Amino acid sequence: MKKFTRIALAFSVGMLALSACQSQNTDTIIRTEVPERPAGQQDMLGFAAPALETVRIGFIGLGMRGPGAVDRMSQIEGTDIVALCDAETENVQKCQDILKKNGRHEAVAYSGDEQVWKQLCERDDIDLVYIATDWQTHVMMATYAMEHGKHVAIEVPAAMNMEQIWDLVNTSERTRKHCMQLENCVYDFFELTTLNMAQQGLFGEVLHGEGAYIHNLEEFWDEYWHDWRLLYNRDHRGDVYPTHGLGPVCQAMDIHRGDKMNVLVSMDTKAVNGKEYYETHRGEAAPDFQNGDHTMTMIRTEKGKTIMIQHDVVNPRPYNRLYQLTGTKGFANKYPIEGYMVDKSKVGDLYTGEEGSKSGKVDIENLSAHSFVPEDVKAALMEKYKHPIQKELENTAKKVGGHGGMDYIMDYRLIYCLRNGLPLDMDVYDLAEWCCLTELTAISIENGSAPVEIPDFTRGGWNKIQGYRHAFAPEK
Amino acid sequence: MKKFTRIALAFSVGMLALSACQSQNTDTIIRTEVPERPAGQQDMLGFAAPALETVRIGFIGLGMRGPGAVDRMSQIEGTDIVALCDAETENVQKCQDILKKNGRHEAVAYSGDEQVWKQLCERDDIDLVYIATDWQTHVMMATYAMEHGKHVAIEVPAAMNMEQIWDLVNTSERTRKHCMQLENCVYDFFELTTLNMAQQGLFGEVLHGEGAYIHNLEEFWDEYWHDWRLLYNRDHRGDVYPTHGLGPVCQAMDIHRGDKMNVLVSMDTKAVNGKEYYETHRGEAAPDFQNGDHTMTMIRTEKGKTIMIQHDVVNPRPYNRLYQLTGTKGFANKYPIEGYMVDKSKVGDLYTGEEGSKSGKVDIENLSAHSFVPEDVKAALMEKYKHPIQKELENTAKKVGGHGGMDYIMDYRLIYCLRNGLPLDMDVYDLAEWCCLTELTAISIENGSAPVEIPDFTRGGWNKIQGYRHAFAPEK
Repeated sequence: MKKFTRIALAFSVGMLALSACQSQNTDTIIRTEVPERPAGQQDMLGFAAPALETVRIGFIGLGMRGPGAVDRMSQIEGTDIVALCDAETENVQKCQDILKKNGRHEAVAYSGDEQVWKQLCERDDIDLVYIATDWQTHVMMATYAMEHGKHVAIEVPAAMNMEQIWDLVNTSERTRKHCMQLENCVYDFFELTTLNMAQQGLFGEVLHGEGAYIHNLEEFWDEYWHDWRLLYNRDHRGDVYPTHGLGPVCQAMDIHRGDKMNVLVSMDTKAVNGKEYYETHRGEAAPDFQNGDHTMTMIRTEKGKTIMIQHDVVNPRPYNRLYQLTGTKGFANKYPIEGYMVDKSKVGDLYTGEEGSKSGKVDIENLSAHSFVPEDVKAALMEKYKHPIQKELENTAKKVGGHGGMDYIMDYRLIYCLRNGLPLDMDVYDLAEWCCLTELTAISIENGSAPVEIPDFTRGGWNKIQGYRHAFAPEK
Repeated sequence: MKKFTRIALAFSVGMLALSACQSQNTDTIIRTEVPERPAGQQDMLGFAAPALETVRIGFIGLGMRGPGAVDRMSQIEGTDIVALCDAETENVQKCQDILKKNGRHEAVAYSGDEQVWKQLCERDDIDLVYIATDWQTHVMMATYAMEHGKHVAIEVPAAMNMEQIWDLVNTSERTRKHCMQLENCVYDFFELTTLNMAQQGLFGEVLHGEGAYIHNLEEFWDEYWHDWRLLYNRDHRGDVYPTHGLGPVCQAMDIHRGDKMNVLVSMDTKAVNGKEYYETHRGEAAPDFQNGDHTMTMIRTEKGKTIMIQHDVVNPRPYNRLYQLTGTKGFANKYPIEGYMVDKSKVGDLYTGEEGSKSGKVDIENLSAHSFVPEDVKAALMEKYKHPIQKELENTAKKVGGHGGMDYIMDYRLIYCLRNGLPLDMDVYDLAEWCCLTELTAISIENGSAPVEIPDFTRGGWNKIQGYRHAFAPEK
C-alpha cells in the first residue's frame, strides 16, 4: 500500500482562528492517490450498452448466494442461463435441479478445480457473468470476464481494497463493459419508497444519512467455503462489509450525481467476541485477531452533508441496517421500527392525526411532542410515494422471494436495463465508493482515527449528472 | 486557545505495517494540555463532605429550569430553601408562590441586576447553591459559590470550554466542595434499570455505547433569556450540548472508575435549518452561523471501547437520546422503542418465548432471526433489575414529576447524599468529562475531523476506583 501520503504541518496555536464561516483546516487529512486515467479511456457515467434481446448468463460461485440467484434469474423473462460454475461439483448439480424445476434447459457445467471459472469467462455465448464467490476472488474473475467481453455483476463487497477497486474501474472504462455490484438493499421496499420521497423533496435537503450492517453471524460462520469469511475478519481491521449500509444512503444523497464523499474517519472497539469465537471454534489462539467487534465511520461530502456507517457481526444484537435520512423538512428511519416525520405542509390531506405540541402552549417538560407520523398517515404516505419499480414488481417479487423481494427486484432491474439498452441502476463508481471503506477505514483506524481522503473515482465527473434516477425505457 | 499542540510527523508509506495486534499509530492526535495540579491540592475521587442534617439551598436562575427545581426541592424532606435569585424580579416572585404552595417559608429574594447573585453566594446560612442560569454564566457563579464555602449543583452543560472546566476542577479540589452537574438523564427509568443490568453483568463486557441530544428546539428558541441559546449556537461549532447523551453511557462504562476516554473525533453537517431560523426570526443575516445542523462524535477509551454521540436541535426529527449499550453478551436500546437482547442463559426462567433461528436449520434468508426479547420477558427483566433507587422512589417521583420523574430522583439523590455525608452520584470529573466535548469537538471539526486527545481530568486517578456505584447510607 503505497498510495497514501501525509502532508505534515506543524500546528501549535491559533487553530480556533479558523472558526469563521464554518471553515476547516484540512491539512490533517491523509491524502489518497488517484491514478491517472490511462490515455484513450473515458468515464462510464451514464453508460449504456447495446440492448440485448436475451441476456445470456454464466454464474460463478454457487455456494451460499449463487443458488438463489440462479433460481430468481431463471424466473425472469428474457434470460438464458448458459453456464454454471463452482469448484464443488455438487453445488453445480443443485443449481441444475433449480433450472429444471423452473422449466429451463440444463446449463453447461464447470467444476472440479479453482481455475475452471476462466473457461466460463472465455465462452463466446455469454453476455453477463454473475459472480457470487468469496470476497477475495471477485476482482480477478470480474476483470477477466470484462477482458473477455462480458458485463459483470458482483456480490458485495465487490472489491476489498483500493488497488482492486481501481482495477475494476479501469477495466470497465477500457472494455466499455458494465461492472455492477449486486447491492440488494437499495431495492428493499422501505428504502425504495424512501428514496422516492427524497427525490420528490418530501424531506427537503437530505443533510445526514445513516446505514449499518449489524448482524450477528454466529450461526453463519461455518457456512463459508474454506472458512473464508471468518479468516478475512481475523486478518483485517476496518469496516469490511460497508455496502449494505452505504448504498441506500448514497443513492438518496446523489453521490457522484451532484455531490461526492470527501473524507472519512473510522474507529473500532477491541476484538472480543470475534476473537473468542475463532479461538473456541477453530481451536487456535488468535492474539492478532484484527476486526474490532464494533466499527463505525463518519463521512463528510463536498456539499457539507454527513453519513454514519456501522459494522458489527459478532455481538448479540437485533439485525439492523439503520437506514436513516435526516432532511431539513423531514426524517425517515427504518430500524428497529419504520417511521417518518414530515412537515405537516408536505403531508396535506393525508394528515388525520393531532400534533400535540403545536396546538397549544409550549410545554418544556414534554419530550415526546415530536414523534413519527401516526400509522395511518405513514401507510398513506408509503402508498402515495410507492416507487414505480415497486409498483410494477412487488407482487411478483414477494412470490419469488429472496430477502423479502429485494433480491428479485435487483436481478429484474439488471436484466430489464440490459435488455432495454439503459444505464444500470448502479455503475462502477457506486461500486468503488461503497467498497472503498474496506481499506480506507482500516487506514483511519490504524492511524489513530485520522481523517482519510475519499478519492473521486469518476476522476472529475462527479458533478456531470444532477440527481440519481433509475432509467426506464420509453413506453411502447 | 493555546492549550493544544500538534506533534507533526511525516507519513508516507508503510502505514499498514502497523496492522498487527490492533496497534495504532497515534501521532495523528491533537494533544490537549493538562495543567499541573496546584501544590497542596488533592483529587476529589470518592470525596464526601460532613453530613448535613438540613441542606440549606440558594437558587440562582429561575427562568426555565429553576422553578421546577424549586418546586421539587421544596417537596423533599430535609431541605430549607433559604434564598432565591434571578435578574428578573417577576421570576423570583413566581418561585415564592411555589414555596407557599408547598408549605414552605418565604425565601430571601435577590433580583434586579446581573450581579446580585454574588450576595446570595456570600450568605453564611447556605450549604448548596443550585445554578440554573444560561450556559455562559455557570462557571463564574459556581467558582464564586465554592470560594464562599458552598457546594454547587449546576445545570447542563456546566461548562462550555476547557478553561472553564479546569476552573471548576481546581476550585472544587482546592475548596473541598462538591461540584455536581445536574445531569438528569442518568436518572431516567430505562437508564437506571439498564445501568443496574450492566453492573450485574447482564450484557457481559459493555464494548460500545451511544447517546444523543436530538430535540427540535424550534418552539423553544424564543423562551431563552436575551436569546442566549440561539446566539450560542450561532457563534459556536461542535456538540454544544453533549451531556444528556454522554452521561448515562459513561456511567455504564465506568469512566474514571477503571477506564477513561482517550480520544474523540467529530464531524458536522453545514448549518442550514439553524441559520435559516435565525435569519427568519431574528431578521438578521447570519452568513457565519456556526453550529452545523447535525453533529456526531466518536470516542475511544483506554480499554478499547467506543462511544458515539450525536447532536441535532434544528431538524424535524422525533426526540431521541439514543441510549444504547452493546455488550459481548447483551444489548440495550431506548429509542425509538425500548428493547433488550440478552443471552438465553442469562435470562433463565424469565424466557417464555421461542427463539426461531436457534430451534432448527440455519436460514440465511431470515434477517429477523435476531430480535429483542419478547415484551413479557422485557417486563420481567426490567422488574428483576429495577434499580434500588428506582424501587424506593418511583412512586413519589412520578407524582412530583419533572421529565417523567428523573429530575426528582436527581434532586432527591443530591439531598440524600449530602444529608448522609456520602459521595455524590456525579463528581466534578464526570462534569469535566461530559462537558469537554463542547470545545474538543469544535477543535476536531475545525481541523478536518482530526482526532483530539481527551485529557485525564483526574490527573492520574482514573483507575483508583473500580466500577461506578451509587453510594448508600448503612441501614439503620
